[in-house]
Amino acid sequence: MKLIRFGNVGEEKPGIVTEDGRQLDVSAFGIDWNEEFLGDESGFQKLAEWLEAHQQDCPEVPAGTRLGSPIVRPSKIICVGLNYSLHAKESGMEVPAQPVLFMKATSSLSGPFDDIVIPKNSQATDWEVELAIIIGKKASYVSKEDAYDHIAGYAVHNDVSERDFQLRHGGQWVKGKSADTFAPLGPWLVTKEAVANPNNLHLWLKLNGTTVQDSSTSDLVFDVPTLVSYISQYMTLLPGDVISTGTPSGVGMGFNPPVYLKEGDVVELGVEGLGTSKQQVVAYKG
Amino acid sequence: MKLIRFGNVGEEKPGIVTEDGRQLDVSAFGIDWNEEFLGDESGFQKLAEWLEAHQQDCPEVPAGTRLGSPIVRPSKIICVGLNYSLHAKESGMEVPAQPVLFMKATSSLSGPFDDIVIPKNSQATDWEVELAIIIGKKASYVSKEDAYDHIAGYAVHNDVSERDFQLRHGGQWVKGKSADTFAPLGPWLVTKEAVANPNNLHLWLKLNGTTVQDSSTSDLVFDVPTLVSYISQYMTLLPGDVISTGTPSGVGMGFNPPVYLKEGDVVELGVEGLGTSKQQVVAYKG
Repeated sequence: MKLIRFGNVGEEKPGIVTEDGRQLDVSAFGIDWNEEFLGDESGFQKLAEWLEAHQQDCPEVPAGTRLGSPIVRPSKIICVGLNYSLHAKESGMEVPAQPVLFMKATSSLSGPFDDIVIPKNSQATDWEVELAIIIGKKASYVSKEDAYDHIAGYAVHNDVSERDFQLRHGGQWVKGKSADTFAPLGPWLVTKEAVANPNNLHLWLKLNGTTVQDSSTSDLVFDVPTLVSYISQYMTLLPGDVISTGTPSGVGMGFNPPVYLKEGDVVELGVEGLGTSKQQVVAYKG
Repeated sequence: MKLIRFGNVGEEKPGIVTEDGRQLDVSAFGIDWNEEFLGDESGFQKLAEWLEAHQQDCPEVPAGTRLGSPIVRPSKIICVGLNYSLHAKESGMEVPAQPVLFMKATSSLSGPFDDIVIPKNSQATDWEVELAIIIGKKASYVSKEDAYDHIAGYAVHNDVSERDFQLRHGGQWVKGKSADTFAPLGPWLVTKEAVANPNNLHLWLKLNGTTVQDSSTSDLVFDVPTLVSYISQYMTLLPGDVISTGTPSGVGMGFNPPVYLKEGDVVELGVEGLGTSKQQVVAYKG
C-alpha cells in the first residue's frame, strides 16, 4: 500500500495511491497518518477493509495538488552517518565500527516536491538521497530478529545538509541538518509488505539531470534490521519516527572542488519501488 | 505564573500553582500546555482572564498526584554543550567559540519526580542540572534583541547523560542523551514575566543529600538571548521547544575517579525561582 498526504502546508489530508496509480482522498477514513495510526498494529488492515467498502466513493486528489510529507510530523528524525563505505571515504572519514547517529529537527520536514530553501549565510548546501525507515510499533531494546515487526514502511528522503554548519561551526552535526525544507520526504510511505527486501534497493540522485549518486542499499554498512535494533538500545522509537539510513557516495562535498546547491538547481531522487521526488532550489528570502 | 501538568503518564492534565502554593486543575480552560497554547501570543493573558472568572471553581489537585512534564511533548529538545567554562574543563574540552548544540530524543521527557531508569548496559549514567528555556512564539533568524519575545518561560531540567554512550560509542552525543526518563522537566513552567533575569539564577544539584553542582546562570558562556538567537539561525524553534542551556561543573564524569548513578541514589536539583525536582534512580527491568 502507498500512503500520501496532500494539500497546502499545514492543511494536508491523508490519501492513498491505487494500484493503477490514481491518488485518492481517504480523509473520510477519519485518521491522518500519524503516531496513533502508525502505531495501531491493525491500522493498515482496518484501512484496507475500509477501502474495500468505500474506495469507489473516495474523490480523486485534483491534479496539481501539492504533496506533503506522507506522515504527520514525527517525534524524531534520526539519521545514520557514514553508512556507505564510499561515502565515508569521500567525506574523509573512516567507516565507523558502530552506526553514527544524529538528529534532524522535525521542523525541517517538507513535501517531496517542495522547494529546498538555501539558509541565510549558507555557502555549502548539499544533497543526500537516502532510504528512510518509518517506524510502526514502538521499539525499545528490540533484537535484529524482531526489527521488522516494528517497521511500518519506507520512503525516499533527501537528507539536505549544510556542510559548513555541519562540520565547521563547532560541535555536532545537527546544526547542518535542521534548516526548514531540509527533509523532503516521500512521495509515498510504502508499507513494508510491498517492499521485498529493503536491503537491496537501487537509489540515485540527479542534479540538473546528471546522475551524481547511484548505488544500492545492498551497500549499507549497517542494514535495516541492524539499525532499528541498534538505535532502540539508546532510545525508544515511536510510531512514525523516521530513521534515515545514510547516503551513498556522490554528494557535492565529495567533488573536487566541491559542488554545492545554488538557486535554480533541480534535484531529483528516487529509491527503487518507493517513487521519486524532485526539489527546486531557491534562496532564502527573509 | 506557574504551570504544571499532573496525572498518570500519558494522561496528564493542565494545572497551575497559585501564589499561595496551591495546585489547581485548570483542565476546564480547555487546552493543554502544548504548541498551540504556547504559540498563542495572548495565550497566557487569556488564561489569566479565565482564572479571574473561574479560579474559585477549579478543583485542587489531590495530594500525592504525580506531576508530569509541565509542557506537552515538544517538537524538539535542543541542548547546549560545554556552556559553563568549569564544566568544559572537567570534561577535558575547550570552552567552545560557538555554542555546541545537540538533541535529546523527546521520548526521553519525564516528570520532575519520576524515577531515572539506568539503561541496559549502562555503566556511566550521570546528572546535569540545567536552566531550560521554553519557546513561546516561533523563532527563525531572530536577533538577540528580539529573543525574549520568543520565550514563554523557564523550567528546571536534569539533562541525564550516559557518558559511555555519549562519548565512547562512536560519533554524536545524542546516543547518550536520549534514553527514556533522561529528561525530567519541571516541576513548573515559570512564565518569563516571573523571572527577573534568567542570566542570574542560582542552580544546584544534590546527590544523596550532598551538593555536587552549585553555580549560577551568570556563569553561562552564551547567555539566554544569545542562545535563542544563535539556534534560530540553524533551525526554526517552535512553541514549546526546549532549549537546555548547559550544565555547570560538578557532574559525575568530573570526579576523580568518576562517580555514576546507581540504583537507590537520589538526585535533587533546583534553579532559583523555578522550583526543585527530585528523582530516584532505578535499574532497567526488561
